[in-house]
Amino acid sequence: MDAAAAKPRRRPFLAATPAFAAGTDSPRAFLERCLSVIAEREGEVRAFVVVDIEKARNAADESTQRWRDGRQLSPIDGMPVGVKDIIETIDMPTGMGSPLFEGWRSERDAASVKALREAGAIILGKTVTTEFAAVHPNVTRNPWDLDRTPGGSSSGSAAAVGCGMVSAALGTQVIGSIVRPASFCGCVGFKPTVGAINRGGSHDYLSQSALGVLAADLADAWQVMKEMATRCGGDPGTVGLVGPAVLPEASRPARVAVIRTAGWATASEDARQAFDRACARLAEAGVQFSDGSDDAAISRAEAAIKDAQALSRAINAWESRWPLNTYGDRDFAKLSQPMQERLKQAEAMSQDDYQAAITKRDRARLLHAALADRYEAAITLSAPDAAPLGLASTGDATFAVPASLLGVPAMSLPLLTSGGLPLGLQLIGFSGRDAPLFGLAGWVSSQLS
Amino acid sequence: MDAAAAKPRRRPFLAATPAFAAGTDSPRAFLERCLSVIAEREGEVRAFVVVDIEKARNAADESTQRWRDGRQLSPIDGMPVGVKDIIETIDMPTGMGSPLFEGWRSERDAASVKALREAGAIILGKTVTTEFAAVHPNVTRNPWDLDRTPGGSSSGSAAAVGCGMVSAALGTQVIGSIVRPASFCGCVGFKPTVGAINRGGSHDYLSQSALGVLAADLADAWQVMKEMATRCGGDPGTVGLVGPAVLPEASRPARVAVIRTAGWATASEDARQAFDRACARLAEAGVQFSDGSDDAAISRAEAAIKDAQALSRAINAWESRWPLNTYGDRDFAKLSQPMQERLKQAEAMSQDDYQAAITKRDRARLLHAALADRYEAAITLSAPDAAPLGLASTGDATFAVPASLLGVPAMSLPLLTSGGLPLGLQLIGFSGRDAPLFGLAGWVSSQLS
Repeated sequence: MDAAAAKPRRRPFLAATPAFAAGTDSPRAFLERCLSVIAEREGEVRAFVVVDIEKARNAADESTQRWRDGRQLSPIDGMPVGVKDIIETIDMPTGMGSPLFEGWRSERDAASVKALREAGAIILGKTVTTEFAAVHPNVTRNPWDLDRTPGGSSSGSAAAVGCGMVSAALGTQVIGSIVRPASFCGCVGFKPTVGAINRGGSHDYLSQSALGVLAADLADAWQVMKEMATRCGGDPGTVGLVGPAVLPEASRPARVAVIRTAGWATASEDARQAFDRACARLAEAGVQFSDGSDDAAISRAEAAIKDAQALSRAINAWESRWPLNTYGDRDFAKLSQPMQERLKQAEAMSQDDYQAAITKRDRARLLHAALADRYEAAITLSAPDAAPLGLASTGDATFAVPASLLGVPAMSLPLLTSGGLPLGLQLIGFSGRDAPLFGLAGWVSSQLS
Repeated sequence: MDAAAAKPRRRPFLAATPAFAAGTDSPRAFLERCLSVIAEREGEVRAFVVVDIEKARNAADESTQRWRDGRQLSPIDGMPVGVKDIIETIDMPTGMGSPLFEGWRSERDAASVKALREAGAIILGKTVTTEFAAVHPNVTRNPWDLDRTPGGSSSGSAAAVGCGMVSAALGTQVIGSIVRPASFCGCVGFKPTVGAINRGGSHDYLSQSALGVLAADLADAWQVMKEMATRCGGDPGTVGLVGPAVLPEASRPARVAVIRTAGWATASEDARQAFDRACARLAEAGVQFSDGSDDAAISRAEAAIKDAQALSRAINAWESRWPLNTYGDRDFAKLSQPMQERLKQAEAMSQDDYQAAITKRDRARLLHAALADRYEAAITLSAPDAAPLGLASTGDATFAVPASLLGVPAMSLPLLTSGGLPLGLQLIGFSGRDAPLFGLAGWVSSQLS
C-alpha cells in the first residue's frame, strides 16, 4: 500500500470498548492495530522517541482480561497512549528534545502518567517534542504529507494520534503547542484551563503552560482528562478539571464571539472561507455570532490580545531564565540558537519588567473574562492555514497564543480542510469552564462533520 | 576543647565583608573558619550529606580576588551556604532524605542555587533533610545538645547555621520546617510569602510550601533572599520577593497582635514567661499589643487557624499523592511509616475533599488578612519550648503551622531561651509584605538582644 496515498485515520478508543465488553474485540487486538500503523509508518513519520512494544502487549493482555471480567479500571483501561517527552516516565528516559537530556532518567512517573496507569491506560511510548517544548524543531514529520511540519511543540503526540498509532497522547501548551499540531495533524487538541491537570513531573514550569491532550475524538479527549484529574488533581493549590464522568452532553451555544486575532490577516483565503462556511452553517442551526464590529466588549478583548505573542514570549523568557541558565552551564552549545536567545532575553529582564508583563496579562484576562456574561465561547481558526511545507519551522502559532496568554481552555477540532489537508476550528472557553466547552464542541462537531 | 561545653556561635557574613574590602580578612579565611567548625563538630552534629571542601576553597579564592579588586558579584559574594538536600545541585547528588534517592543526580542546579552561584555565594554542601522534607527524622543532632532534635525538616540547615559551619542555608517550610529548626538551633529562620522565591528544582511542590533561609542574622537572611529573588524571581506567575537592596531599616511597629495558637496550652511555663517578658519590654518601648481578648478580629483569626495542623495535613496529603504513589512503585518498603500513611490518606481523598480543604484555608487567609488594617504583624512563640530531648521526633510544629497555612511570611528570631537553650520568638507578617517584616524584626531584635 502506498502510505502517502492512504489518508491517515484516527483511532478512537472509547467507541471500541463496547466490543471489548462483548468479547468481539479486545485491548490487545486494539493495540495490535496501533502497532501495525507504527510498523508501517513510524519509519517516515518518526512520532516516537521510544516505544516499548513488549511491555505494552503485556499491559494490553492484562486489560483484556479485566474487560472480560467486567472489572476494567476505568473507561480508558487498555487505551494506548503516547507521552510527550518532557513528561517523566519511570520506565523510559525523558529526553526533552535536547541533546543535554538524551537518555536522562527521572526514576519516577509524572503525576499525569501515574494517573493514566492507575486508570489502566497503556503507556506505549514517549512522543517527540521540540527542544524543551519550545520552537526548535525535531525529527517528526506530518503524517498527511511528509514534507510538511506536524507543528510543535507536541509534534510526536499530534502526528501519532493523527494517523492512529495511538488513540491519545499527552501534550503541553504555553504558546500553541497543542492547538497548532492538532490543527496540522488532524486530531482533537485540548488545552485546559491553566492548572487543570497536575504538572508534577512535567517539565513545563511556565505560568501559562498547561497539560492537555491530543486525541482521536472528543470522547477520548474528555475521558483522558477526566481520569487524570480524578487521580492527580490540578496543580497544587487548584482543584483541577471537574465535570461529568463521561463526555459532557452536546449542547448548542446560544451566542458565540468571533475572534479575529492579530493573525487573521495572515490566514489564507481557503482557510477564511472554510471558517466562514462553518460559521454560516452553525448560524443556520441557530447560533448567534457577534464580532468586534458588533460588540465593543469583543473589540476591547481583541485589542488586549493583539500583542499576545510578544507578551507571552517576554513572560516565558523570564520564567525560563531558570532552567536555561543551568542547562547552559553544562554545554551552552547544546542549546539551540532560539534557546540561547531566549536566555539572553531573560537575562536582560528584571523583576520589574516581569511585573509589568504579568500586569498586562492580568488586564487581558479581565477583558476576556468579561465576555462570559454574553457569550458561551469564542470561535476562531486554529492556524492561518493547513500545515506549511518544510520542516525547519513548526509553523505559525498566532491563532493559538491568545488562549495560552489568557489561561483559558481551548480546543482544536478537526472539522475544516484546506487544499485537502486538515485545518482546525478553534473554540475558546472561559477559565475553569472546561466541561461546558466539551459540550459546545460536541454540538459543533455534530453540525459540521 | 569540650565541644559540649562550648556554646555554639553563629557566623554572620555581611558583618565580615568590610574587612574583605579592606584586605584584613578574606572569603577564603572566612571559609576556613567554617571548615574548622565542620572539622571539629560535623562528626557528632551530622548537618551535611556531602561537603565539597576543595571546590569551596577554589570558589573562596576566586571570591577573595574579586573583593580585593572591588568587583564582587554581590554583597554575599563568598558567603558559604548550605543547601537543603531536596534542592537540586548540578555538582552534588540530591538525596531527599530517602533511600529511594540516595546518590540521585538531577544534572542541574535549582533556580535558587543557580541564583546564589550567580551572586558569588559558595555552595559548600548539601544539608540533611528529613525524608522528603516531611516528618521522618534523619541523622542530624542539635549542636546545643546532641541528645536533642535539631527540629525538622530543614534539620541540617539549622544545625549548620546554628553552630557557625555556614552563615546561611536554604530551607523550605510547608508545616514548620524553617521556623521550628531555627528555634531549636538558635538561628534566624525566615519563611517568606508563598511563591516569593522560585521553587524550580526544589522538591517541595505543595501549595503552601515556600523556599526560605536559615541564617546567622537578619542582614544575612535578607541578603540571601534578595539576591535570589533578583536573579530567579518568584514561582512562575508571581513577581517574587521585593524590597530594598540591603536589609530594610529597623522600624518600631505601632501595633502588634498577640496570637496564642492552638499550641499555647502545650507551651512550657519557661517559654511563656520568656515570651511575656519579651512582650513587656517591647511594650515599654512603645508597642501596643492586643490579643483575642481585646479584639474580636484577632479571636476570629485565631479560631480560623485552630485546626491549622489537621487542615494542612489534609491539603499536603492530597498534594503528595503524587509523587508518593510513584515512589511507592519503586519500593514501597523504602517509604517510612508516616509517608506510607500519608499516601493512604491521599488515596482516600477525592477532588471534592480537597476543594473543601482549600476553601477552608482561603477563609482562614481572609480572616488573617483582615488584621492588616490594624496591626503591622502578629507575634507568638516559634515552638512550645526549647528543643526536646530525643531524636525520634523533630518536635512539635504547632506554633509554626499557622503562617504556613496562611501563606504569609514568618520569622523565628533567636532572642529567647529556656533552660539555657535557644527558643525562637516568632513574628508573622502579611502576604507579600516580606520586607516590612524584616524592618520590624530588626527593631525587635535591637530591643531584646
